[in-house]
Amino acid sequence: MPKRRSLPLSKVYGLLETGPVVLVTTAHKGRSNIMTQSWHTMMEFEPPLIGCVISARNYSFDLLDASRQCVFNIPTAELLKQVVGIGNCSGKKIDKFKKFGLTPLAAECVQAPLIDECYANLECKVVDRKLVNSYNFFILEVVQAWIVPGLKEPQTLHHRGNGNFMIAGPTVKTTSKMK
Amino acid sequence: MPKRRSLPLSKVYGLLETGPVVLVTTAHKGRSNIMTQSWHTMMEFEPPLIGCVISARNYSFDLLDASRQCVFNIPTAELLKQVVGIGNCSGKKIDKFKKFGLTPLAAECVQAPLIDECYANLECKVVDRKLVNSYNFFILEVVQAWIVPGLKEPQTLHHRGNGNFMIAGPTVKTTSKMK
Repeated sequence: MPKRRSLPLSKVYGLLETGPVVLVTTAHKGRSNIMTQSWHTMMEFEPPLIGCVISARNYSFDLLDASRQCVFNIPTAELLKQVVGIGNCSGKKIDKFKKFGLTPLAAECVQAPLIDECYANLECKVVDRKLVNSYNFFILEVVQAWIVPGLKEPQTLHHRGNGNFMIAGPTVKTTSKMK
Repeated sequence: MPKRRSLPLSKVYGLLETGPVVLVTTAHKGRSNIMTQSWHTMMEFEPPLIGCVISARNYSFDLLDASRQCVFNIPTAELLKQVVGIGNCSGKKIDKFKKFGLTPLAAECVQAPLIDECYANLECKVVDRKLVNSYNFFILEVVQAWIVPGLKEPQTLHHRGNGNFMIAGPTVKTTSKMK
């Protein structure tokens, strides 16, 4: 049985709309990196578009801008230490996969690897960089999505600032007609 | 004692980075409206910039684009019914403040009202509309922020899609050096 299965692209927005911390992986010319990231938003349902800020001060900016590809990996609370550690160092001189004991998996549509320990992975391609120079803001299209089935209420992490993380609480169902 | 106090603009990012559902208020030429919104991201720490998608199908789009101002009001779980109700109807023909029993307060820097029942309110001005035509994406600058003091772990709402809302869980403190 495969650990993860393909997720219909129409369901991607529900993974990101809650505002989880993500681990963005990038790769270019034999180098790869991981970055902790919270500044992202959905911009379209289908095909799913994500807007995100990747600061030019980060090594990941160089890899993303050169390759025009990345993967959004969504961690749960078990990975809190890694999320913090990855956010506190630069990948310019170290291999973060090795340093933090994470497992890279080959993606299907992009060069950047999936992180096996994350419960969801979104393979993305840069489709618009009009706001990169002014705001470091990239618009990505999700071209392939993966999920580890069975996690109905994933304990995602949500950064409150200054190293304080909110862990996702219970889910309530309403009769909302909102998509 | 005032119920709410001014929040330093440098602290705004911590309110939105977790990805809460917000109630966006707008006003123009005597009409006002409220919209339930989840598609937003921080884009800069200070002055705080927010990127957000307000669909041109929404009445709020017209008021925002005409006035170039709005308020991001952040509700907690007590307002779940209102959040859902507001998201399921249009303000074109009804006054949502009256319909949902919410109290408008005068803002300091913008025409759009604050919602008294929300624990935080961010007065915003549109500073960049380059991506409005292509993505309905507005860039806002927060010019004044308000908070009701004392809520250390506000039970914000986070939309999982299809009317399912995650309620913010506990906060854990780490030694992260991340801002």
